[in-house]
Parts: sequence; structure tokens; C-alpha cells
Amino acid sequence: MGFILSLNNFLFMLVKTIIGVMGPGEGATPDQNEMAFELGKAIAQNGWITLTGGRSFGVMDAALKGACEAGGLTIGILPMETTKGASENAQIRIVTGMNSGRNYLSVLSSNVVVVLGMAPGTASEVALAIKSNKKVILLNQDDVTVNFFKQIGTYKILVAKTVDETIRLAKEYLAVNKA
Amino acid sequence: MGFILSLNNFLFMLVKTIIGVMGPGEGATPDQNEMAFELGKAIAQNGWITLTGGRSFGVMDAALKGACEAGGLTIGILPMETTKGASENAQIRIVTGMNSGRNYLSVLSSNVVVVLGMAPGTASEVALAIKSNKKVILLNQDDVTVNFFKQIGTYKILVAKTVDETIRLAKEYLAVNKA
Amino acid sequence: MGFILSLNNFLFMLVKTIIGVMGPGEGATPDQNEMAFELGKAIAQNGWITLTGGRSFGVMDAALKGACEAGGLTIGILPMETTKGASENAQIRIVTGMNSGRNYLSVLSSNVVVVLGMAPGTASEVALAIKSNKKVILLNQDDVTVNFFKQIGTYKILVAKTVDETIRLAKEYLAVNKA
Amino acid sequence: MGFILSLNNFLFMLVKTIIGVMGPGEGATPDQNEMAFELGKAIAQNGWITLTGGRSFGVMDAALKGACEAGGLTIGILPMETTKGASENAQIRIVTGMNSGRNYLSVLSSNVVVVLGMAPGTASEVALAIKSNKKVILLNQDDVTVNFFKQIGTYKILVAKTVDETIRLAKEYLAVNKA
Repeated sequence: MGFILSLNNFLFMLVKTIIGVMGPGEGATPDQNEMAFELGKAIAQNGWITLTGGRSFGVMDAALKGACEAGGLTIGILPMETTKGASENAQIRIVTGMNSGRNYLSVLSSNVVVVLGMAPGTASEVALAIKSNKKVILLNQDDVTVNFFKQIGTYKILVAKTVDETIRLAKEYLAVNKA
Repeated sequence: MGFILSLNNFLFMLVKTIIGVMGPGEGATPDQNEMAFELGKAIAQNGWITLTGGRSFGVMDAALKGACEAGGLTIGILPMETTKGASENAQIRIVTGMNSGRNYLSVLSSNVVVVLGMAPGTASEVALAIKSNKKVILLNQDDVTVNFFKQIGTYKILVAKTVDETIRLAKEYLAVNKA
Repeated sequence: MGFILSLNNFLFMLVKTIIGVMGPGEGATPDQNEMAFELGKAIAQNGWITLTGGRSFGVMDAALKGACEAGGLTIGILPMETTKGASENAQIRIVTGMNSGRNYLSVLSSNVVVVLGMAPGTASEVALAIKSNKKVILLNQDDVTVNFFKQIGTYKILVAKTVDETIRLAKEYLAVNKA
Repeated sequence: MGFILSLNNFLFMLVKTIIGVMGPGEGATPDQNEMAFELGKAIAQNGWITLTGGRSFGVMDAALKGACEAGGLTIGILPMETTKGASENAQIRIVTGMNSGRNYLSVLSSNVVVVLGMAPGTASEVALAIKSNKKVILLNQDDVTVNFFKQIGTYKILVAKTVDETIRLAKEYLAVNKA
């Protein structure tokens, strides 16, 4: 019985924790990209996988790059039918051929969803994350955005101003909600 | 040449105009359901098809019911693998098996998207509609919602207070953007 | 009670019966296109909707064209994010943005699946139809194809040589399996 | 210039090679499960990732288990909206909520597709792999199956009798078709 329990524990540990980082592609600001890079690094340093929409632009790309530089594993959930246009920092490429339909998979596959910058695709990911009962951390968002998502997401929405605060919130959540 | 033009016109007229009506299911208020019913009726009276998420609850169901009563054609884009749980007012049932992933198809298949009531799934549809360059009419929405979607959707977002105003805005748009 | 039953019957009749016609696009032979055209006509004459992959080529297009000429209603389940490349005979355009992922929706949305001609996409539709417990009619297929699908689909696979036989088999099935 | 080339090489090496293993779930035979286990082990020993449909049954589960035991990385492309029913050997869980619609993603995300055992879902994966120009290795399949898929897939279909032969064919293909 003790053996079975520890075997289960061992098997359980095989399952990876995935942090989704959602944000604009081409429209991301330099500050957002910088923060996404730091966020990806911090996710990797905690032993978690970084997952994004996987394209070679903006927050998607910068977060994956940060994670790679810190030696972490990365996943890109790609919109096209091929890997064309994928970030070179997306180590594992899930090719969906679903265009923006892939946003639903990005949030379903994440244990925690962090949102940095805002754009229509990003907003759909926040909304689908709430719908799917995911914990969402809004990082450095303006009041208009926070007010709207708190109105539809209530307790599922957390707010952070810094990468450190984001990581702390994710840790607290994951401590009681295993992958 | 005149013949070819008129043949093209004839063929063109085969293509149906689809108005998507997006809104909460179980969480819809009686007033929202009443308005959705009137909206479905008005859509049918204009010769357009009413499309919703197709479930037997809330705005989805009420809009389809209104359209049916006015003799219109209706489409339900269903989340499940079967027609179980479909509104009996969904005459054409597109069965997706994609759960909330079907929200993307609902907006892509609509010539105009009307939004009545708000919930996480509904918000994802508005965001995906903006992302897909659809015209979105926010019907009777509060300021928090309008401010957020105007911030990310700019000119693609129209605002209406009544069913009549909604139909007028849809007509104006469709007059210059054929199905 | 009689009233309720008849009301239910009335409502039930609103739901449309959809016949999916699956077959090659660009690779279809003239004979296959001719037969698809006749099949679409026959489907329409029975009051059923014709559903195909909706592109402007091959079996997809020819079946929709036959249905339109006989005054029937048609649905195209389109692979792209827009209606670009759609058959002009696809009256109702379900835009999926899912590329070949839309094949699953085509079969789930059909009450009966008829297969005319063979290609990789078509084969995926037959397989997914079997998986989803749909009745599949293989129309005018060679032995290699029939043997394989009978091996994996057993009783779900019916075989026909002509459009008339196909319609008869569909009618028999629908008589005991309502839409 | 040499620096840039070597940097590119370094980045290129980040991208993982994924071998998809497709086969029946509940219906798999003990021999097929045994072979799937050996196949997963061999994939891991070559430094590749093993990807399957991710459920806790049959070929899907056995291949992931073999890969885990050999210290490899594994991906499950899950059909449900949650990780319920996932193989405990699926280390990275891509949650799609798409039911059998996820079969398309499984093949698109694989550099090579290996097929072991046959069932309707498996057949849809072979067909979609051919449609998406993937190399498919049919492992230990009967003549009816091989004949059909060679007829629709021609040169994209390779045939193997053993795990060793499968690995050799995959290596040859990957030597000239990088991930």
C-alpha cells in the first residue's frame, strides 16, 4: 500500500504543469515584450512549461524566448496547418490548422493563464478561460479591462502588477490545485 | 453580357444572409429572453436566417423561437457530439463536438453578430468576432462592457438600445457588405 | 394531451433532415460529378437538405448545384476562415476556419452520409462517420474501398450502385431514425 | 557568418521531433499493446517525443508508458474538455474539448505517423495524415488495410512488420525532412 501510494506519486510527478501566457502578437509594445520575456524566464525557473499561441511575434514569441534562455520547455499552439510562422523558441509545436479556434485549446491546456497586453484574440482567451473555470492572472492591465473581466469572471480573475507577483499568485494556486 | 450579369445576380441571391445572436444560456434574464424573442422575429421578417449556439436555454433558444414563429429559418451551432440538448427551434443543426470551440464558428458564419446579455462564452464570441473583422452590434449592454469592447474593437463595435435600432444598423451594414 | 402530442409533432417537423455528400474536390472524375449532380437533385426532391464540404470543385460543388436546380436547400461546411473559394451553390455557409478539421463537423451534422468517389479527405469522413455511429452509404465504390470500410464499419456501411438505390436506402434508414 | 549559422543550428535543435503513434483504445489486442509499449520505448531511446490521443487505454496508453519507462517525453492530445480519462503516462496534456476532431491535430503535430492496430478513429488519422502530406508507417497491418491506404496515399504510405523496421524508416525520413 505504501508502495502503491509512492508509485502513484511518482507517476503523478510525470505530469507537467503548464502556464499559458496570452497576449498580442504584432501589436505588442516593447515594454510588454520585455515583461513577457521576464515572465517566460520566471516560469522556466519554477520548473513549469511555458505555452503560448506560438507565433514569431510579440508576447507569444518573447515569453517562449525567455523560457528557452532559462532552460525551460516551451509549447506553441499554432494556428496554421503547418509550422510556418512558428516562433523558433517554440520547442513543441502543436499544429492545429484551426486559426483562432486554437485559442480555446491554449486555455484548456494551461493550468494557469497569465494575460499580458490586450487584443481581440487575447480577450477571447480570457473569456474562454473564465468559461472553462481556469484561474486567470491579469498582468499590468488597465482599469477598463480589469473591470470588464472581473464583472464576468468574479473570483477567477486575479490581478498582478509585476512578474514576481504573478509567479507568487500562480504558486499559491498550484499548491492547492495540482496539474 | 447582360445575361451573364443577371445569371450571376440570380446565383448570388441563393446565398443566405445569416445574423448571429449571441447571449447567455441558463443565466439569461427574462427581459433578455423577451428581447431575444423579438429580435429573432425581426430577423426572420427581414428574410434573414437566425443563428445561435443552439442550446435549449436563454437567449440562444428564445431568438430561435422568435424566428420560427415568424416563419424564418434557424441554425444552431451545437457544442456537443450529438443533437442532445438542442433547442427544438433549431431547424438546421450543425453538430460540432467542439464544446466552446464552436463559438469561433458561430461568429465566422454570421454576416452580422448581435450581442444581447453577457457571459464568459458570449464575451469570447464578441472578441472572436472583432478578431475576424465582423461587425458587432452590442444590444442594451452596460457601460463596462461597451467601454471594453470599444477599446479593443473600435469601429467594428456598434451600440443599440432596441431591436428596431439593431435591425436598422444591420440593414445599413448589409446594404454595402453583401453576404 | 392530444394537443401536446400534435404540438410536439409540429415542432419536431421543423427540424431539417440533412444528407451529407462526401467526395473528392479537384480530383473528381466527370462521371462522379455527373452522379453527384443527380444525387443532389434527388436529395432535394425528397425534401432533404444537401450538405457538403462547400468548396467550388468536384463532388462538393456538383451535389450542391443539383440540389439548387431542384429547388432544394444547401449547406457548405467551409474549411477556410472566410467564404473565399465557396461554391456559389452553397446557400448556407458554415465558415469553420478549421481546414480539414471541418470534416468531423460535416459528418456529425449529417443524418446520413453518402460517399461518392474517394480521396484522403473523403476517407477521413467515412472513418469519422463510422466512429460517430452514422449510417454511411458507399455509392459506386471499388472493392478495395468497400472491403476496408466494411472491415472497420461492419453494419454501419451500406453499399449502393445507383442514385436511386442510395435514396431508397436513405429513406429506409430515416423512416426509423428521425432527424 | 559562421556564428550566425551555428546560432541558427543551436536554435533549430530546440525544436523537438514528434512521432505520433495511432491505434485503437479499448479495442486494442494484448499483442498490439505490447508492440506499442516497445515502440514508445524505441521512440524515447532515439530522443524523440511520443504523441498519442492520450487516453488511458490501448495503444495510446501503452506507447506513452513505454516512452516514459525509457525516460522520454510524452504528449497526449486529449478529446475531452478536461484531463479526465487521460493516461497517467501523458506528461504534456493538450486539452482540446474537440472529441474526435482532435485526430486532425494529432497528425498535424507529428513529424511521422506510425499506425498500429486499426479502428475507425485510427483510420481517420491515417486519412488525415495522407491529406496533410505526412509520412505514414503502417505497422503490422493486414492486406485489406494496406491495399486501401496505398490506393489513396501512394508514396506517403510505408509498411513495416517490426518496431525496428519502423524506427529505421522514421530515421531515414527524418534525416532528410527535419522537424
